Amino acid sequence: MVKVGIIGASGYAGAELYRLLLNHPHVEIVAISSQSYEGKMISHLYPSFYGVFDMIFTNDQEVIEKADMIFASLPHGLSEKYAKQCDEQGKKFIDLGADFRLDQEKDYQQWYQHDYQYPQLHEKQVYGLSEVNREQIKQASIIGNPGCYPTSITLGLYPLLKNHMHKDEKIIIDSKSGTTGAGKSLTEDTHFPKCNESFHPYKIASHRHTPEIEQELSKMAHQAVHVMFTPHLLPVNRGIISTIYVPLKDNVDFDDVYDIYQKTYQDEYFVRVLPKGQVADLKFVQYSNFCDISLHYDERYHQLIVVSTIDNMVKGAAGQAIQNMNLMYDLDEKEGLMMIPASF
Amino acid sequence: MVKVGIIGASGYAGAELYRLLLNHPHVEIVAISSQSYEGKMISHLYPSFYGVFDMIFTNDQEVIEKADMIFASLPHGLSEKYAKQCDEQGKKFIDLGADFRLDQEKDYQQWYQHDYQYPQLHEKQVYGLSEVNREQIKQASIIGNPGCYPTSITLGLYPLLKNHMHKDEKIIIDSKSGTTGAGKSLTEDTHFPKCNESFHPYKIASHRHTPEIEQELSKMAHQAVHVMFTPHLLPVNRGIISTIYVPLKDNVDFDDVYDIYQKTYQDEYFVRVLPKGQVADLKFVQYSNFCDISLHYDERYHQLIVVSTIDNMVKGAAGQAIQNMNLMYDLDEKEGLMMIPASF
Amino acid sequence: MVKVGIIGASGYAGAELYRLLLNHPHVEIVAISSQSYEGKMISHLYPSFYGVFDMIFTNDQEVIEKADMIFASLPHGLSEKYAKQCDEQGKKFIDLGADFRLDQEKDYQQWYQHDYQYPQLHEKQVYGLSEVNREQIKQASIIGNPGCYPTSITLGLYPLLKNHMHKDEKIIIDSKSGTTGAGKSLTEDTHFPKCNESFHPYKIASHRHTPEIEQELSKMAHQAVHVMFTPHLLPVNRGIISTIYVPLKDNVDFDDVYDIYQKTYQDEYFVRVLPKGQVADLKFVQYSNFCDISLHYDERYHQLIVVSTIDNMVKGAAGQAIQNMNLMYDLDEKEGLMMIPASF
Amino acid sequence: MVKVGIIGASGYAGAELYRLLLNHPHVEIVAISSQSYEGKMISHLYPSFYGVFDMIFTNDQEVIEKADMIFASLPHGLSEKYAKQCDEQGKKFIDLGADFRLDQEKDYQQWYQHDYQYPQLHEKQVYGLSEVNREQIKQASIIGNPGCYPTSITLGLYPLLKNHMHKDEKIIIDSKSGTTGAGKSLTEDTHFPKCNESFHPYKIASHRHTPEIEQELSKMAHQAVHVMFTPHLLPVNRGIISTIYVPLKDNVDFDDVYDIYQKTYQDEYFVRVLPKGQVADLKFVQYSNFCDISLHYDERYHQLIVVSTIDNMVKGAAGQAIQNMNLMYDLDEKEGLMMIPASF
Repeated sequence: MVKVGIIGASGYAGAELYRLLLNHPHVEIVAISSQSYEGKMISHLYPSFYGVFDMIFTNDQEVIEKADMIFASLPHGLSEKYAKQCDEQGKKFIDLGADFRLDQEKDYQQWYQHDYQYPQLHEKQVYGLSEVNREQIKQASIIGNPGCYPTSITLGLYPLLKNHMHKDEKIIIDSKSGTTGAGKSLTEDTHFPKCNESFHPYKIASHRHTPEIEQELSKMAHQAVHVMFTPHLLPVNRGIISTIYVPLKDNVDFDDVYDIYQKTYQDEYFVRVLPKGQVADLKFVQYSNFCDISLHYDERYHQLIVVSTIDNMVKGAAGQAIQNMNLMYDLDEKEGLMMIPASF
Repeated sequence: MVKVGIIGASGYAGAELYRLLLNHPHVEIVAISSQSYEGKMISHLYPSFYGVFDMIFTNDQEVIEKADMIFASLPHGLSEKYAKQCDEQGKKFIDLGADFRLDQEKDYQQWYQHDYQYPQLHEKQVYGLSEVNREQIKQASIIGNPGCYPTSITLGLYPLLKNHMHKDEKIIIDSKSGTTGAGKSLTEDTHFPKCNESFHPYKIASHRHTPEIEQELSKMAHQAVHVMFTPHLLPVNRGIISTIYVPLKDNVDFDDVYDIYQKTYQDEYFVRVLPKGQVADLKFVQYSNFCDISLHYDERYHQLIVVSTIDNMVKGAAGQAIQNMNLMYDLDEKEGLMMIPASF
Repeated sequence: MVKVGIIGASGYAGAELYRLLLNHPHVEIVAISSQSYEGKMISHLYPSFYGVFDMIFTNDQEVIEKADMIFASLPHGLSEKYAKQCDEQGKKFIDLGADFRLDQEKDYQQWYQHDYQYPQLHEKQVYGLSEVNREQIKQASIIGNPGCYPTSITLGLYPLLKNHMHKDEKIIIDSKSGTTGAGKSLTEDTHFPKCNESFHPYKIASHRHTPEIEQELSKMAHQAVHVMFTPHLLPVNRGIISTIYVPLKDNVDFDDVYDIYQKTYQDEYFVRVLPKGQVADLKFVQYSNFCDISLHYDERYHQLIVVSTIDNMVKGAAGQAIQNMNLMYDLDEKEGLMMIPASF
Repeated sequence: MVKVGIIGASGYAGAELYRLLLNHPHVEIVAISSQSYEGKMISHLYPSFYGVFDMIFTNDQEVIEKADMIFASLPHGLSEKYAKQCDEQGKKFIDLGADFRLDQEKDYQQWYQHDYQYPQLHEKQVYGLSEVNREQIKQASIIGNPGCYPTSITLGLYPLLKNHMHKDEKIIIDSKSGTTGAGKSLTEDTHFPKCNESFHPYKIASHRHTPEIEQELSKMAHQAVHVMFTPHLLPVNRGIISTIYVPLKDNVDFDDVYDIYQKTYQDEYFVRVLPKGQVADLKFVQYSNFCDISLHYDERYHQLIVVSTIDNMVKGAAGQAIQNMNLMYDLDEKEGLMMIPASF
């Protein structure tokens, strides 16, 4: 049994982690922490856990002491010190926040207005996009778990970029996220009478996931990839859908693209390339760890339109983190993640 | 032109008031106030007003100075002093809060934990249920505008009680309200990821509208009427629906009841008694001043089931307040209130 | 491994059955049938199953041939012949429809306008309310799986009635169901532009679950129990909430009632009696097999208000059916049903 | 009083027309028709009209006979013959369908698989984008009322294209529409349990509004404009939002663009260019005739992002049709269209 602890366990990503881990046959949750709710029971915050998992939130240090595998779900800038401790004690660390995603400190400084406290620690970090970086993840001790938007986007473009089938032009990414992505804190934007029946973009041309997206896409393509990324807030609870517009190279045809996608993901349980003609829909991945991808072709302009969907809390956060933990512990990658989405 | 002012104009009821009054041909809005937003423009709070009505929130006193007709939409306990001032200056006052609804100070003390500051002022108050108290409203200078739940319930029971067709037993009222009823302030219950796809009762056997409901029903029946009232929070923006269970007197039959309802409301534009067999639905009154009533009969137990629907912000608040103002100024009662609900 | 087959597997209840059974460690799904979709793959109907479970719908007879445990999810009147076959072949049969729920043929005739084809078969039927009829279910070969509304209501009242703490008066039940309860067929009422932001009761005083509710409550109370039952359509996908108004006997007090509920359900994993002061909410049971019950007291009228919530597709249909199967096969009752609801 | 008739009045656009026209002071609705519902009352279909407007659907010919101003809301291919009749009788005709929007018959043939029946009639047609073609509309007898998507897009790009501030490259348009856009007919996609909490694109690279969009944008720019247009279905009732990605010319800066937008629309009541920093949101235009436009700049790529929102049933259909009628009859353009959207 893996002794798991969660730091910052009162937020949505933390709660989703133990919700899923409770059904993981090889995991024991030994401690969870929350600075704001220390001493309170989970069901005080999340009544759905009443009678099922009534652990009490403790402090962060107790989590590190008791656990061998530590997940952290914290605002940026707060994870480093815990990663450092885990590293020193030979414990594994998966950060669901943004502190271990960017390869260059200057990007982190530019987009998060923050310096690295332990620059050397970041040499050990591995970007936890399970399907793409599987081998490095298996060896890693510190994982930067991908952001929700980047997960949908990078999986959606990986086969294309890796095989250089795209034209070297700017990629337009129009993403839409459910409201759990905005988190547990009350905001005007997520006040029901305002949010319900509403829809709008936000942080246009300025969302912090942008450098992460470009970094990972560039590594896939082995060349600089530029994106315009626009997130929108969708009045649903769960899910991210990215509609991605990419010009294809002149000599590439759509059937080849489709074949490459199928081939790339043929052994990946959690990535489903939908049959031609079908369209990916949030609905068909919610509450699961699947990433559904549908491919479409605009013949008038020889452009590919990729539609990529995930559940932002699962494949976009807690689910992928567990998938990475499974890899790190040489467990079946699907363990604890076999939830089948409903179509209704 | 009636010179109208609104005190407490930053909340939903206040905003709905000027949203509707802007289309009233005989009204000029001369000032609106907000303690929290003094000096700010309306569109800062409610972007839908941008370019349409960009008045700046002022202070409460300026509203009273400039206006002849003052609406107040304030937490309980704050309206009395303004009503007092208006009374002294011969201005009309409609309170959308709870300060002028209860006839007995002891009820106010019991349910609102507050004393009357000016007990004599309350002798002048008239309960603003337009269809029922029309003649007194015309003469009134201080109106206690009915609560949203009480409006749906009292209109739904008026013909029955007035004609003593009900058995003298407890009436069960199961009401459901859209989230605008919970107001503009952020709450856990109205945080979208929690509220969406959710449903639950609240303030069971303890909601402050209970004494108001019993008071008005008892006056209608000329005898004490007892109710069990349970409100629920519905994941929609607008509307209240009350499902009301009333035992009928043994010698009363359902057709008679239906006829009495039709007759009572035949000249009332805003109260629609639906054809037998049809069921009232929130949808068909939203964004309008209508109260739709459908009547149903359980022959196994000789019980009447009344379904009564309103838009909580319109007939349940701002709309009825305007209807009352029209009465007080001898204007066409429908002026400014001719919105036709959409079915989609 | 239990060889399971599902007849009528294209509807929502059928789909929910295999969605859940796929995670059941002791079940093999050997065949599923659909008259309308014979020859089609599941993912043709329900894209969420793509790549996960791509069985092809066969015909009903093949299901009975191949399986030992047959679930049927059919319109009323169609299950009997299959139950008969299973009975003759020594196979177990769980009917998610209405054909094996009513004890008296005359009730079935009155409410469903249908006769029993095999009256003797019905002597073997057991009402599959798992927590209440556990011992009979273990021995049964034909189960009438409870209706969704009846499940929420009977579990909500069982401790009270069994212990005769209620006054012998009519019980008012105001229930609200999510739209999956209305099924997969397209209807005006579930057309999004009409259903969204809408709410209304339906089948007032005439819903077919009424005799089932009264039958089971009467058995619990060992005396006739009368209910007025009003269902409403809630614009959410999943869940039933019943608000139940019951007068208490004069000498019974609320604390005793609460204690009896706790005691009755203390060993029941799937029934959670919430702490005093908490209110049951759809949200906290969705996609799980839990029934949450909160108890409230109106001291002014010495009445109990029970709020009972379930997921209509799980505890109200497929989940309870699996729970019953587990009982029939002497498996751990919770097997395949450990889904933990999210609070967001 | 303008004598108005509506052909095809049972669909959503038709119903929205009379819902709005009933509050138009210079209009008398003399007849409405529906082939499917001839002889039925409106409230049979749309209960919100009960007691308000209970006209009976008649046949198409009676509408033309009685009215001077005919609106038609029909599937493509059915309007021409009525337009022909109106033309011959000197009556005005506004088509809310697609028959009079395309300038070239070959485009109509290609995208709608249909020929023109009366090619000469189309020489008289005017594209009813009120703000852009105001003077021609005033003189027109046959109006092709713009599609909902094209309205949001063309108004969103008009100032930019007219002033040649865009680079001559493909424009990417990612649009999202509420479900009323899909109409009154029942479909799998708009079945509540499927549609709710769902989101997906549809008709990718093949939507029939594409040629209409390119035609009008090209006219504005006086050069060919190419777009990739992807519509999505949003789980809300009303509204279209288009997120439009346009590269700017090298020598154009964002402030100039913003100024041009403001200047272009400064006298247009129904087009609101939002202050810099604000983001257009569906919410703030629903149930109104406004088009809200917010402008955003991606300095990394010198690209403009235009966000344009309308209510698809109002400015995107019935509202703009009425605006055009007002122009044709030399009435105040805003008459009947002064609805102020709510922010809640």
